[in-house]
Order: sequence, then structure tokens, then C-alpha cells
Amino acid sequence: MRATIIHGAGDIRVETVPDPEILEPTDALVRVVTACICGSDLWPYRSMAPSEEGNRIGHEFIGIIEDIGADVAGFEAGDLVVAPFVWSDGTCDFCEEGLQTSCRHGGMWARNGIDGGQGEAVRVPQAQGTLVKLPVGADSALMPSLLSLSDVFPTGYHCARTAGVSPRTTVTVIGDGAVGLSAVLSAKRLGAERIILMGHHKDRTDLGRELGATDVVAERGEEGIERARELTGGDGTHTVLECVGLVEAIETAFAVVRDGGTVSRVGAPQYGDVPMPFPVFLRNVTLTGGVAPARAYIPELLPDVLEGRTEPGKVFDLTVGLDDIADGYRAMADRTALKVLVRP
Amino acid sequence: MRATIIHGAGDIRVETVPDPEILEPTDALVRVVTACICGSDLWPYRSMAPSEEGNRIGHEFIGIIEDIGADVAGFEAGDLVVAPFVWSDGTCDFCEEGLQTSCRHGGMWARNGIDGGQGEAVRVPQAQGTLVKLPVGADSALMPSLLSLSDVFPTGYHCARTAGVSPRTTVTVIGDGAVGLSAVLSAKRLGAERIILMGHHKDRTDLGRELGATDVVAERGEEGIERARELTGGDGTHTVLECVGLVEAIETAFAVVRDGGTVSRVGAPQYGDVPMPFPVFLRNVTLTGGVAPARAYIPELLPDVLEGRTEPGKVFDLTVGLDDIADGYRAMADRTALKVLVRP
Repeated sequence: MRATIIHGAGDIRVETVPDPEILEPTDALVRVVTACICGSDLWPYRSMAPSEEGNRIGHEFIGIIEDIGADVAGFEAGDLVVAPFVWSDGTCDFCEEGLQTSCRHGGMWARNGIDGGQGEAVRVPQAQGTLVKLPVGADSALMPSLLSLSDVFPTGYHCARTAGVSPRTTVTVIGDGAVGLSAVLSAKRLGAERIILMGHHKDRTDLGRELGATDVVAERGEEGIERARELTGGDGTHTVLECVGLVEAIETAFAVVRDGGTVSRVGAPQYGDVPMPFPVFLRNVTLTGGVAPARAYIPELLPDVLEGRTEPGKVFDLTVGLDDIADGYRAMADRTALKVLVRP
Repeated sequence: MRATIIHGAGDIRVETVPDPEILEPTDALVRVVTACICGSDLWPYRSMAPSEEGNRIGHEFIGIIEDIGADVAGFEAGDLVVAPFVWSDGTCDFCEEGLQTSCRHGGMWARNGIDGGQGEAVRVPQAQGTLVKLPVGADSALMPSLLSLSDVFPTGYHCARTAGVSPRTTVTVIGDGAVGLSAVLSAKRLGAERIILMGHHKDRTDLGRELGATDVVAERGEEGIERARELTGGDGTHTVLECVGLVEAIETAFAVVRDGGTVSRVGAPQYGDVPMPFPVFLRNVTLTGGVAPARAYIPELLPDVLEGRTEPGKVFDLTVGLDDIADGYRAMADRTALKVLVRP
């Protein structure tokens, strides 16, 4: 089959790789219908050292089951399924607690011999715990929103949930990328009435307003912090959803959170030390978040998507074929596309 | 009156200072009956640059009201009162939310012209919001436990509460100082059944066992981490109460917390950057805590102390007179005393 391989920064190729097959009785074989490119795929796209062998890439996909292992119950060939961006057994204590990202028998796509999502097919380990059946056809107009359930929407939702967003909390969302906009949508869903979106790409913040942002702060750095605080009488907001992952973003988060409030971060942090100077400690600010257990949230979010009450798929603004996926990476890296859908 | 002045590292003096008097109608004048030395007083005791003028010091005291301003209701001369380690108005939004440490009209003792607690008397600003009346005589045998309500017990309790300790959570307490032992007591009070105390002073960890610790890890560094993880089947505990404030302690905390768990820190951090490498993000670890709003917890903790259900005063193991307070500092710094009570 054909699959995407990253050979280094800026070097995305579509190559022929071995066809996947069932190896374990807990596997399923899924033919990819639609996949996408994640903001986190851009980190290696920007920084990976050249590699002759390269790595598989991609961790978000919807597909049709072609075959299942003997131990996989509840699915059959022909089912349309969405895969969360971490695979998990669904039965261990962490999975039962809703922390499938720490599953005792789980793992990431495109690593250690596991297929990536940006290809024609995927061997899905722990298929019964991992996959979620979608009660629509592969030609459904809902596909972009359904695909967003694999990562970007639950990631934004995890950010809002772990921050404790509720009708009683004010919210700042840092970042107008697809995760930030998903966080806006999530905060709205959780009842927040005041959602300040910090971002400086007007087309994106316009979409943010459509998804629920009540205020937009387009200024950057100190000016942006000052503006965000002004909007809350100088106090900052109860919750801050940090959806970027750069150290400047987390610094901004601590500067615009209200005393006693919570900063949640879901943008894969590109820093190891979190700058929390003594005043942040004095102000009783909590730092939470982490990699989103998307699988835990899909059953909760799916009905809203199916019934059209929420449209997280609006973050997709470009579709490419698999053979043109390098163009999709380029468009996202250049910010001419917000999030790119891929059709093998 | 006589009060303690710190003139630099290791330089504690008792000097004559102006007698305090009512300056604002919201003030009270309190004659100190008993005060104490805090672990946080040891930071300047170890590091302060020499100063001819010096600074007042001390922020924990019980005293008898001598006079009150015109706007202070609910108190009268002769009342025995405990002061939390931050003064606060009790009426602003932060106070009403239980975050008196962020009070809009509050502040710290021994700063900006405010008396310290380690002296004969104190002008208490915002007395009505700050002070809590104690329904016992100044000769009560409960005095050490009542005095602990000013800081050390609520600080340990804040750590356990913000970490989310409950009967369903396992707990690791890092640090066998007075705050760590108060955190053990607090975790026990909140119903935790498994409390692992990490500390290497046997007399202190023995007291920790008496206060509720079920396991003690005396090993340090990597060995201590390994031992603590072993005790929990390799997983770590749901909550970790970091009661030291050094970077090694917070590193240990992240190493012994279970995936999805919470680290709370109340030991004044002696570092500005929190080491949270990428795996900590992947493991969905929350970092919470901060300076404890002791005033919020006193009404909840006081009945248990009055009725003898809890004895947080056990952390006091040395009493000195005010004139000998320098000996008390030395004993705490040398770790020959756990926590020192001071009688003016």
C-alpha cells in the first residue's frame, strides 16, 4: 500500500510500504477513508534530522474495517470507524478511569512498527478498545466533524474539562490554531459565557467568534496580556486554555489567569521547564492538562456531532489527496491552511 | 515593646521597637501570648544579606485583644484570638471564595510597616476579617495545636485538599518537616488509607507514623523514588504532597505520582522553573497548591482541635522565651528542633 513517510524537516514522501495484515487476535485491519494532518505533525516537519529510512506519520483517521482478529468483538467488516490518536485496550484500570493515553497495553500510531494514519490502510492493535463505530456512511457530510473526534476536538475538550470550565468560569483560550478553536467550541459547550480568544490571524479568530469566542485579543506579547487583563477588570480569567505549546504561550497563560485559577495546556510543550516564578505560587495557580485521552471523550461528543449540534469539522479548510499530502504539510506550515484533510 | 528583627543570615536579634497602636478603624491591637518559628523563616535566616536596619519577622501567633478600632465588630478586649499568616478583609470576592491570600485589601505580616508575629504585640490590620476567636483560656493545654492553625496545619491541609486527597486516593508526602507531618495528618483526616511519608529523620518519620503515615521511605534520591514506586506496584500514588520547596523535591514528586494524578506543593519553592519534561505532560500530571489561605480552613479545623480529635501541635518540640528566640532559630536550622514555640 501507499503511506506517508517523513524523511526529515520539510521532507514528506508517499511511498509503497508492506500491506498491513492481522498479526494479533486483538487487531483489526482498517482501510483509511479520510485522515488529516495535525499541528503536532508540524514539529518533526520543522525540525526532524534527515533520515534515509524515515518514519511513518499520522495519527488521525476514519476508515472501514476490512478484517478483524479472533478476539475483537462488536465490530465486523464494513463498519465505519474512527480511531483516536492513541490506541488502548479499553479494559485496564487506566482505560476504565478514562485515561486511555496511559493504557497498560496501548501506544501511539506510527511508532515501533505500528502503521501511521496517513496511508491507505492501518493495522489497528487493541481494536476493540480503540475503535468507535460510526453509524453513518463513508459519504456522510459529517465526515470532517467525525474525523475531528480522533484528536483535535477531544484535545480542545480535554483542555476545557481539565481546566474546570463551567458556566461559572471565565475563559481565555491562547492560540487560534485548530486546537485553540476546538477549545473555544468546547468551552462554549461546557457553558462558559465569557471566552476570550488570543490569536492574531483574523480569519481564524473570525471562525473562533463563530464557534463561541466573545472577545478576541489580537495583540501579542505584553500588549496582549495587558489587553486580556483589561477585559476582565485587571483580574484575568478563572481558566486559561493554552493550545500552542511554546514557552511564550505558557508565560502568557500564567499572566492572564485569575488568582486561584487553572491553566490547562494541551499543545505539546516545546519546553521542559515551566516558568512559574514565585508570584504564580503565591497566586495559587494550578497547571493541568496533558495529552488528551480522546477515546474517553468520543462517546460523549459523538451524539452532538451526529445530530449537528456542534460542528468541530469547521477547522478543516483544505482537502488534499494522499499523493499531494506534502502540499498539505506545506500549507499548514505556511499557515495558508488551518487544518488539512487527506483522502487516500 | 520588644520584637524580633532579622539583620541577615544567622543574625536574629530581639530589639525594642515602637509600641503598636490602632492606626485604622479596622485595626486591632493584640498582645502576643504565643508565637512560633516557621520553616519559611529559615530561608532568610540562611540567605539574607546583612542589613543594619533589619526586618521584622514572624507570621504565626495567638494573642489577647487589647484594643479594637471603631469598625471591628465581633471582638472585644480580652478575647483570645489566632491570626492566620496572611491578613485579609474577609469581605472581598477572593475572601468569599476562600482565597484570603489574594485578598484585595490584605497582606503579609512583617512587611511594609506591619508588625511581625515574633514580638510582644501586633497591630492587626483588617482585624475583623483576619482574626478568629478561640473559646479557651490562654493557659489551655491546647495552645500548641491552636497555634498550629495560624499556618502549619492549614498549610498541610491546603496541600492535601488541593491535591484532591480522599478515601479513594493513595498519597505520598514528601518531607518530614512540620508541614510534611501536618500534610500526613491532613491526608489522614481526609480519609486516605495509604499514606507514604518520604523523609530520613527517624524521630520525625516516627511522629509521622503516629499522625497517620502507613509507610515510610527513608531512602533519598533515585533510591527513594524506586522504593516509593515499589510500594505502589510501580505506579506511584494518585496524589503527592510536596512539602519541602526544593527542586529535588518537586522532581521526586513527578517521579512518584501516578499517571493522571496530582502533585500539590506548599513548600515555598526555591526555584522559578518547574522541571516538567515531556513524559510528565504525556502522563497527565496536574501541579497545584500554593500559599495556603489558612484563614479559610480555620473554621473547619478548629472544632477538631478543640475537641481533641486531632493534635497538630505535636509538631512543636521546643519552647523558647522571646529573648532566646535566636536559640530557637539555631535549633530549627540545625534540625535539633522540628518546630519551635515562642513565649514572649
